[in-house]
Amino acid sequence: MKNEINIGLLGFGVVGSGVAKILNDHRIDLQHKLGVPVSIKKVLIKDKSKKRDTILDPEVFTTSLDEILNDPTIDLIVEVMGGITEGKEAIELSLNAGKGVVTANKDVMAESGHDLLRLADENKCDLFYEASVGGGIPLIRTMEDGLASDRITALTGIINGTTNFILTKMKYEKMSYEDALAEATELGFAEADPSSDVDGIDAARKMVILASLAFSMEVKLDDVFVRGMKDIKDGDLELAAGLGYTVKMVGSAEMDEGGIAVSVEPVLFPDSHPLATVNNEYNAVYIYGDAVGETMFYGPGAGSLPTATSITADVIAACRNLLLGVNGKRLHASQHERKLKEDCDRFASYFHRILVKDKIGVLSNLAAIYSKHAVSLASVVQHPSNDQVENAELVFITHRMSRQQHLDVLQELNNTPDVISVLSHYRVEGE
Amino acid sequence: MKNEINIGLLGFGVVGSGVAKILNDHRIDLQHKLGVPVSIKKVLIKDKSKKRDTILDPEVFTTSLDEILNDPTIDLIVEVMGGITEGKEAIELSLNAGKGVVTANKDVMAESGHDLLRLADENKCDLFYEASVGGGIPLIRTMEDGLASDRITALTGIINGTTNFILTKMKYEKMSYEDALAEATELGFAEADPSSDVDGIDAARKMVILASLAFSMEVKLDDVFVRGMKDIKDGDLELAAGLGYTVKMVGSAEMDEGGIAVSVEPVLFPDSHPLATVNNEYNAVYIYGDAVGETMFYGPGAGSLPTATSITADVIAACRNLLLGVNGKRLHASQHERKLKEDCDRFASYFHRILVKDKIGVLSNLAAIYSKHAVSLASVVQHPSNDQVENAELVFITHRMSRQQHLDVLQELNNTPDVISVLSHYRVEGE
Repeated sequence: MKNEINIGLLGFGVVGSGVAKILNDHRIDLQHKLGVPVSIKKVLIKDKSKKRDTILDPEVFTTSLDEILNDPTIDLIVEVMGGITEGKEAIELSLNAGKGVVTANKDVMAESGHDLLRLADENKCDLFYEASVGGGIPLIRTMEDGLASDRITALTGIINGTTNFILTKMKYEKMSYEDALAEATELGFAEADPSSDVDGIDAARKMVILASLAFSMEVKLDDVFVRGMKDIKDGDLELAAGLGYTVKMVGSAEMDEGGIAVSVEPVLFPDSHPLATVNNEYNAVYIYGDAVGETMFYGPGAGSLPTATSITADVIAACRNLLLGVNGKRLHASQHERKLKEDCDRFASYFHRILVKDKIGVLSNLAAIYSKHAVSLASVVQHPSNDQVENAELVFITHRMSRQQHLDVLQELNNTPDVISVLSHYRVEGE
Repeated sequence: MKNEINIGLLGFGVVGSGVAKILNDHRIDLQHKLGVPVSIKKVLIKDKSKKRDTILDPEVFTTSLDEILNDPTIDLIVEVMGGITEGKEAIELSLNAGKGVVTANKDVMAESGHDLLRLADENKCDLFYEASVGGGIPLIRTMEDGLASDRITALTGIINGTTNFILTKMKYEKMSYEDALAEATELGFAEADPSSDVDGIDAARKMVILASLAFSMEVKLDDVFVRGMKDIKDGDLELAAGLGYTVKMVGSAEMDEGGIAVSVEPVLFPDSHPLATVNNEYNAVYIYGDAVGETMFYGPGAGSLPTATSITADVIAACRNLLLGVNGKRLHASQHERKLKEDCDRFASYFHRILVKDKIGVLSNLAAIYSKHAVSLASVVQHPSNDQVENAELVFITHRMSRQQHLDVLQELNNTPDVISVLSHYRVEGE
């Protein structure tokens, strides 16, 4: 019976040092909770000469991964190095060395999660990845344990703090996209190169992880339809607000007998929808299950302390399993065959903002296009264009229709002489 | 190694039959998840002659608890009988018979939870009670596992679906309290005798369970300050709405070095607060932790399927523990000594609605009372009284102050000649 747990920490950046801090701050509580002390025995870093502000003994720092993996007294690896190639390799080597792994590496889990989980099973090790999605919200564990008895049929989430921060500033403080991005960068909510966030790639990776878990299916990055913030035009947010809607960048996934559909895109929510009140860097994930109905989980999506908290919760679970000798015994998840839904099977309401020539008959012509495609309209708003006095803007919000109908209508609108251009279009929730 | 799990189900009302249905609907998934089949072997009921619409074999029904507890092939008890005395006795007998228990019995867990958890430890059994709070939201497991590494310092929740449904109808459909209560009863969101819900007792019991878990402390029902819906006066909701606030019945708990404070009462939230968007029978619990910051969990608070889902999640966890031989090994929770905060140490903003004589100097006199007690004002609104033309109503919203200051100000207002009466007063969140 073990009388202590030793951790090998790979990486000592913002998150790694946050983990060390939490483990130290809570060491008495942890020892009470588990019955044994938990310590960081070794820390992998690149540069031994760098000065670090930490309570850890300088002796624990090493530049050798082998030294950590070959140490039989080290029970658990915490991988917070980041990086796809290095991170994946470190996780594989750790699992093959028979050591359980707790990781925050979203990119690796999105690309190779299924293979790594199988490798963990083969080595009878735990591989926990709560911190790879949703920072401080215990989403993975909740979906695995808490809703274990329910069949999840859909999930929608604000899962990228950068874009949510930007959209919040644009809506409530009337900032431009560029100014909001600049403030996000200043406050640490955006990277120097923010493209992975604002183009929706970060969210798409998280959706791969979440949808795979929710639907017991091996979802791939290519399965995700992605639209980033570049598609949001000036004036869209104000138009939406005038109609009682808030624009949010969300990841959505749904499953039925026809297969799954996964997307990341800007979506309109009624102001009264819970997701509409999730602001700044906060994330929230809405889950729909057969028996439970709707549940939502809200919290900080990123940040070193929230992420380190998720890692620590996984460390506690891994320690408990090690102490009880039940590490590496994942509940057997039934796998569904991967199948994507056709566009004609994906239903939603849509918002279309169209720049037209302000002439007699335009509204009637366009309305006829919607009728022709069997699309029913929920709202129509017309107002003068800001640009040219002979132009006007029409906004249509449709009732639920298939994505195929939406694409067909857009195509026909784009080929109609009265239409100068379709300025923007969005999915609308809550109709 | 077990090759099957047998359950003894105590009670077959709405929740019990819901559990049976979910276990049946998901039996293939469950067998995949656990590796063995899970079945209901016996069901305790009161009346064997009653016709029941169920797929269960009539042979499983029995009126003898002893028959269930003495059956060595039954591994786990699910207690959904309800009732404080019967329920507590059944749980004690089950634990003493060495059988783990999953319960939905909020009343028993609120009154005797600490003793029963100790009894479970002594018998090396699991005692899980997710369904005793918050219907379908995996709150207990999330707090135990997911935020395990964080110190929880406060929690606030809409945890009673009946009162939330009533307040939603009163606000959005302008129903009277009586009409809203009648509709709640019709839809099954209120009992024939709704007093436990509308007087806040149901919420207080849930707060005992949640606060005990959140703060690792043995909180008692008497520790909870309770105000029910009877204190809400005509016109309060509209006044609050006019100032941008929504009134919600909430349970709140906070802890610091001075001790804990736990309450159930109507509270004003800014319309933009996530809890303000939680409507109808839905519940939501907002948790604040040192490292994570704010997280919120939202979902159906009651209902037979959501509750049965929580029970089933606990059943899966209990089965997993039984199969791995680790039942009854609760993580050792460090217990803090029970200590209640003084009123002078509890801070909040308050809303005061005061009926006054409409005379020169009244506003100035009342404002002076607030100053005298070192209370700073955030908003003041005066308007004519609906009742008498010589009266007026003053609404004050204060900045944060101690509960002691709030009580002192109320006392002085009640003793002031210009004041006819203090019509209502509420705590205000989000100032």
